Amino acid sequence: MVDWTAKFAGRTAYMRRSSIREILKLTRHPEIISFAGGLPAPELFPLERIQSAMRVVLEQRSAEALQYSTTEGCNDLRDWIAARMSRGGLQVTRDNILIVSGAQQAIDLVGRVLLDDGDSLVLENPTYLGMLVAWRPYNLRFSVIPTDADGLLVDRLEAVLRQHPKLMYLVPNFQNPQGVTLSHERRVQLVKLLAEYGGVVVEDNPYGELRYSGAAIPSLVELDAQQRGSRTLDGHVIYAGTFSKILAPGLRIGWIAAPTVVIDKLVQAKQSADLQSSTLSQLLVYEACKDGFIDGHIERLRATYRDRRDLMLAALAQHFPDEVRWSKPEGGLFLMVTLPEHLDAAELLKEALNYKVAFVPGTDFFIEGGANTFRLNFSNAQPAMIEAGIERLGALLKAVLVRQPA
Amino acid sequence: MVDWTAKFAGRTAYMRRSSIREILKLTRHPEIISFAGGLPAPELFPLERIQSAMRVVLEQRSAEALQYSTTEGCNDLRDWIAARMSRGGLQVTRDNILIVSGAQQAIDLVGRVLLDDGDSLVLENPTYLGMLVAWRPYNLRFSVIPTDADGLLVDRLEAVLRQHPKLMYLVPNFQNPQGVTLSHERRVQLVKLLAEYGGVVVEDNPYGELRYSGAAIPSLVELDAQQRGSRTLDGHVIYAGTFSKILAPGLRIGWIAAPTVVIDKLVQAKQSADLQSSTLSQLLVYEACKDGFIDGHIERLRATYRDRRDLMLAALAQHFPDEVRWSKPEGGLFLMVTLPEHLDAAELLKEALNYKVAFVPGTDFFIEGGANTFRLNFSNAQPAMIEAGIERLGALLKAVLVRQPA
Repeated sequence: MVDWTAKFAGRTAYMRRSSIREILKLTRHPEIISFAGGLPAPELFPLERIQSAMRVVLEQRSAEALQYSTTEGCNDLRDWIAARMSRGGLQVTRDNILIVSGAQQAIDLVGRVLLDDGDSLVLENPTYLGMLVAWRPYNLRFSVIPTDADGLLVDRLEAVLRQHPKLMYLVPNFQNPQGVTLSHERRVQLVKLLAEYGGVVVEDNPYGELRYSGAAIPSLVELDAQQRGSRTLDGHVIYAGTFSKILAPGLRIGWIAAPTVVIDKLVQAKQSADLQSSTLSQLLVYEACKDGFIDGHIERLRATYRDRRDLMLAALAQHFPDEVRWSKPEGGLFLMVTLPEHLDAAELLKEALNYKVAFVPGTDFFIEGGANTFRLNFSNAQPAMIEAGIERLGALLKAVLVRQPA
Repeated sequence: MVDWTAKFAGRTAYMRRSSIREILKLTRHPEIISFAGGLPAPELFPLERIQSAMRVVLEQRSAEALQYSTTEGCNDLRDWIAARMSRGGLQVTRDNILIVSGAQQAIDLVGRVLLDDGDSLVLENPTYLGMLVAWRPYNLRFSVIPTDADGLLVDRLEAVLRQHPKLMYLVPNFQNPQGVTLSHERRVQLVKLLAEYGGVVVEDNPYGELRYSGAAIPSLVELDAQQRGSRTLDGHVIYAGTFSKILAPGLRIGWIAAPTVVIDKLVQAKQSADLQSSTLSQLLVYEACKDGFIDGHIERLRATYRDRRDLMLAALAQHFPDEVRWSKPEGGLFLMVTLPEHLDAAELLKEALNYKVAFVPGTDFFIEGGANTFRLNFSNAQPAMIEAGIERLGALLKAVLVRQPA
């Protein structure tokens, strides 16, 4: 017999399953209206384009598509991403780009090359759960900075940067879970502070292209270059992008854009992790996105997701009791609901499943607090389901508040 | 400015680029005949089958194929793998199977859940380089066991298992780099010792189906079940398989078969690493392999690779000087050449590139020794290239041995 408990005693003590992915399993029941996942709307997948792109790849480049490739990724795709990231004035080159298997791998690889046991990490509170799950085994010290409707409270940052933390992690656009966006003014202030203290930020930007209202704000990687009077990426930002939200998550293709000295280390980490991302997926993404197709497609996504966001906000206003508040995101896939302090969203979820509706409790996104919050996804469910689901949740909340008044 | 040297000072000190993947870059020049890679022959990719399987997936299951899925992997593929692994008498279930992004990720994930700093690992010498690259950051203590033409010297194992090492790693079939296979007798002896001492072995089996001569030998996972008088996987073996060598490496799909208690931990590690492997690739692999197609395809691969192995062995006998020896593998993709002790294969490679022929020096596969060895791949090059490349190498070796006699 193997004593597996003894075998797992060390490293895996830090591990736990992502509560979101466990909840997602529960919510697969067809009767349940789920606002729990972060899933794109499957009816918006550009299927014909993907089919024709796949035909091109398998007819014209099959020997390449089915074979091993370099760890860095396929040059056509790296060049295309570099050119697209250069549209705002940056000069991004192929050598700044590493293709990865979705943004989660970007987070994992950055941790592998930069984090050591006991390092300090600057975070917004709440923050992205998938990062916490990936980086918890490093046993980090967290410097937690609160957020408001304009994102991270950057004026609290200087005191933290003075301690020279190893890394900072941010989702500046339509953050998961809150849907909040870091304001332009605070971004400028942030890159100035990074320059002053030699700090490094991971700009995780899966939702940046999905803006439905308000003016676009330059990315941290762009503002950092401006601040340095440069157009290169050789600054303070490690940028993570993904095709999961703008094309299809099932392809598992994302990228890291960073100084070449960082890409070089990340390539070594990726060699260890999985040699390379799927050559077939990479060439498919390139063929599907190129020649401007992805820009038109993103416009279509925006139109549909904007309607769903507006519909959910209207339904919340109509059905939720007055004691409950929620964020009003300008883009992305999520908004966050805040209950009166005495209510616990994890408890509420158990009852919600009886009402055939699901969400993700906020607790796991918070370093501290958040038990009275939950996250709602508005991109995946059809309009009628959004209406019906929010009505069910509203009815539950009213019943709970009668039973447990503040 | 960011002080990247300071940022990288901790964890990445253990990292280094895989020398093989760096050599592969050099050998992409069309004039060079490369025996360096571990690449399947691209002309044998079953393109029509892959095209028709892809049409089925995108016409009948596109919403599933393009969407997020579970970390464990697609059930159709897990069930198919479980059934296939059960053909020899085992009872493998879906719950024993985790789909991973190629066998390299299998190695990486096993390391994440089982290895801690300073753990001891039992290895054959030489061993698979990709495992060394992945696990070196854990700063392990190696218990190195030598090999002969029948694989690992299992009679040296008991003394090592008495120290209760954390893990053992083996490639029992047509090992990379030597092409050597662990004999049936030694396998039986090995699983007995594992049972006696509660040991755990990773059976990495990328080449097992590619046998060209000699009788098939049961896998360790099968013999371990027999030894326990059981048909389940709840024993001492963590098995890693891959579609890279039997279908196409560019899809990046492999699997781990293990006790469910181990799969449960590996799922948590994979959630952190990349959430899941490509849904599209998984469904494509399933549709391409099912209904017996893969068995017929493997027969075709065997016929071609057998010819190439035989051709390379004949060319070696014809062109290589008498002082040089090489292994005679019964399957797989590689054989290993041993030079007279005073010659260094890494030095030889520099001259070989001038002769427009390439190989991988053996050093990096060895924990100790091996400077006078190199690995040759016989699956990728066309027959005429095998002839020409071995002739060039033979001419170089003869010239070197005139210049530097033993």
